[in-house]
Amino acid sequence: MEKNRSKRGAKTLAKIHASWGSPKVLTQLDDIAPDFKNMVRDFAFGDIYSRPNLDLKSRQLATVAALAALNNSPLELKAHLHGALKLGWKKQELVEVLMQMSLYAGFPAAIHALLIAKEVFAENASINSHK
Amino acid sequence: MEKNRSKRGAKTLAKIHASWGSPKVLTQLDDIAPDFKNMVRDFAFGDIYSRPNLDLKSRQLATVAALAALNNSPLELKAHLHGALKLGWKKQELVEVLMQMSLYAGFPAAIHALLIAKEVFAENASINSHK
Amino acid sequence: MEKNRSKRGAKTLAKIHASWGSPKVLTQLDDIAPDFKNMVRDFAFGDIYSRPNLDLKSRQLATVAALAALNNSPLELKAHLHGALKLGWKKQELVEVLMQMSLYAGFPAAIHALLIAKEVFAENASINSHK
Amino acid sequence: MEKNRSKRGAKTLAKIHASWGSPKVLTQLDDIAPDFKNMVRDFAFGDIYSRPNLDLKSRQLATVAALAALNNSPLELKAHLHGALKLGWKKQELVEVLMQMSLYAGFPAAIHALLIAKEVFAENASINSHK
Amino acid sequence: MEKNRSKRGAKTLAKIHASWGSPKVLTQLDDIAPDFKNMVRDFAFGDIYSRPNLDLKSRQLATVAALAALNNSPLELKAHLHGALKLGWKKQELVEVLMQMSLYAGFPAAIHALLIAKEVFAENASINSHK
Amino acid sequence: MEKNRSKRGAKTLAKIHASWGSPKVLTQLDDIAPDFKNMVRDFAFGDIYSRPNLDLKSRQLATVAALAALNNSPLELKAHLHGALKLGWKKQELVEVLMQMSLYAGFPAAIHALLIAKEVFAENASINSHK
Repeated sequence: MEKNRSKRGAKTLAKIHASWGSPKVLTQLDDIAPDFKNMVRDFAFGDIYSRPNLDLKSRQLATVAALAALNNSPLELKAHLHGALKLGWKKQELVEVLMQMSLYAGFPAAIHALLIAKEVFAENASINSHK
Repeated sequence: MEKNRSKRGAKTLAKIHASWGSPKVLTQLDDIAPDFKNMVRDFAFGDIYSRPNLDLKSRQLATVAALAALNNSPLELKAHLHGALKLGWKKQELVEVLMQMSLYAGFPAAIHALLIAKEVFAENASINSHK
Repeated sequence: MEKNRSKRGAKTLAKIHASWGSPKVLTQLDDIAPDFKNMVRDFAFGDIYSRPNLDLKSRQLATVAALAALNNSPLELKAHLHGALKLGWKKQELVEVLMQMSLYAGFPAAIHALLIAKEVFAENASINSHK
Repeated sequence: MEKNRSKRGAKTLAKIHASWGSPKVLTQLDDIAPDFKNMVRDFAFGDIYSRPNLDLKSRQLATVAALAALNNSPLELKAHLHGALKLGWKKQELVEVLMQMSLYAGFPAAIHALLIAKEVFAENASINSHK
Repeated sequence: MEKNRSKRGAKTLAKIHASWGSPKVLTQLDDIAPDFKNMVRDFAFGDIYSRPNLDLKSRQLATVAALAALNNSPLELKAHLHGALKLGWKKQELVEVLMQMSLYAGFPAAIHALLIAKEVFAENASINSHK
Repeated sequence: MEKNRSKRGAKTLAKIHASWGSPKVLTQLDDIAPDFKNMVRDFAFGDIYSRPNLDLKSRQLATVAALAALNNSPLELKAHLHGALKLGWKKQELVEVLMQMSLYAGFPAAIHALLIAKEVFAENASINSHK
């Protein structure tokens, strides 16, 4: 069963993050907290993101909205914006969500998130132009 | 033009909130800050929620996720969960989003949001059974 | 010297809070953490609020703005809104500050603060009508 | 393996919370999100709190400090203060930790936490006097 | 009417920010979210900051206090500290407000804000010495 | 008496921070807010950390937990992780506390704290190897 959680987590994680950003965050935990890295895979991606009843694309929008509103996790917002593009959200749709966060978390939170999106879109264009 | 913002705002607001909860929050501002109540209609609903490029149903999911993660706006989360049901999200889909917020804002934030959802679902069932 | 801090703190505290609300918060600490209650008087009011270079009325505006933006201290916001009225801020000026906080902390924070202000203004009118 | 996580989680949870408060929070999830309730048991208590290298009493102090500083989870702080007493922390030690949080999260956060502790100590005295 | 909001917003914005910092933040939105940049001008500066009943200098103090307490918007705090100097607040008055925020948001928030103020004062001295 | 607060504060501060990090934060306040630097010494370390009823080692764990959960004070978390090592906490114990914070403040908060701990452990190893 444990093995299934890990397998399922790795599989779901790859659907979202097989691109820039997030692996770097998790890989840095390798020496200091390897068990925690595995917990992120097993719990966050194996238990939560892999659940039925809500598609992965909708889940990704929810995560982007939450991270933008919280305004304290730029590395994770960056990784999940890459994931959102990978799962089919259009750039303009993501810009709309980030603008909307100004209503609930203030203008600075929305501005910070838009500046991170700007970086992500530039990295994404650069990846695609080198394919 | 101003008139258009107000009209558009009132129209969009009615698509989300013509139900329990939120009007109460805004109506209480009538005597102390009537201009602010109008700004919520004009800016939040007329300028932001009415924009093209992202459908209202997706916008509502983003708001529910953000308010759950912020864990400091129970009245607004309640109103927007009612709005999310009205716009077609299923109860189980909303439960999934709220559970997922535990990853970014901790377990207490997710638990508080789920307890609010429980109230909303009960109110919603009661409304529907009286139709 | 210690004695001076306490005296100065008590004197400054009385300029702000000799009215509804805040004493209740501090008095409740009497049995569980009496030293902490004294620290609030000595440090917050004796060391900080009593400093020269900025008048008490301006300090009070800053506190009201911060507590509204933080959106997690309703008891203290209530007490300091009473204090702001006592120090000469007009109701409409305080409403303006609270509305402005929507820009930095989102609409729910501003709405919550305005609803607290509504209570404070009602309590204040009731006190004045009984004088 | 899964079964072990659940067993281990239930066992650790009982060491902390076999008393007032927290069960109530989790039991309320029974109908709306029963899987989430199980995840709290399995992940929070089975995976994290059950790990070696740090004793449960120290873990409990860390949780009380964090919940007091975050100032947005009164139900959980209440449950974990009960747990802290159960695990051997003295009332005065807990008061000290909560006072200290004023340095990192401001005076209102510390005051709110102390008022919750006051309730917990009263409930705890009442439980013990009825044994 | 719309045109008036924009004109009024641009005019008020220039009273606060015709100096270092903030334009940079807003200019960076030009390509990714030009409408949002205009909304900041129209709503934040045209609708809110331009309202009567509270003078711009007092509004600026409130913003500095809130951004310092929130401790998550260094770019905006920097821009608004420049604005506060431009509107006539003295350096020592601003230092007092930032110190006071330790009471409501903890010492780290106040220290971070003071370090940003230090940068702003140095930039401001450098601008003035080159006039 | 005042003198005693300062002496006691300096003495307690040296038990925690006579090492990397924190002095740098406080020393930078020398020119802009020297009184505030003294207040940190007198109030935080002289009044709070020096109190009896809770040992300094336990206090340090509480601070590390709170700063990790708040996820907005990296400089202070770094300084207090150095302090925690100095007071006898083992690296693995601190890793456990930081992992645990994921439950109350989300995974990003725990990951950020672990990456800061990684820097602290490397600096600490480097200091010890040069003794």
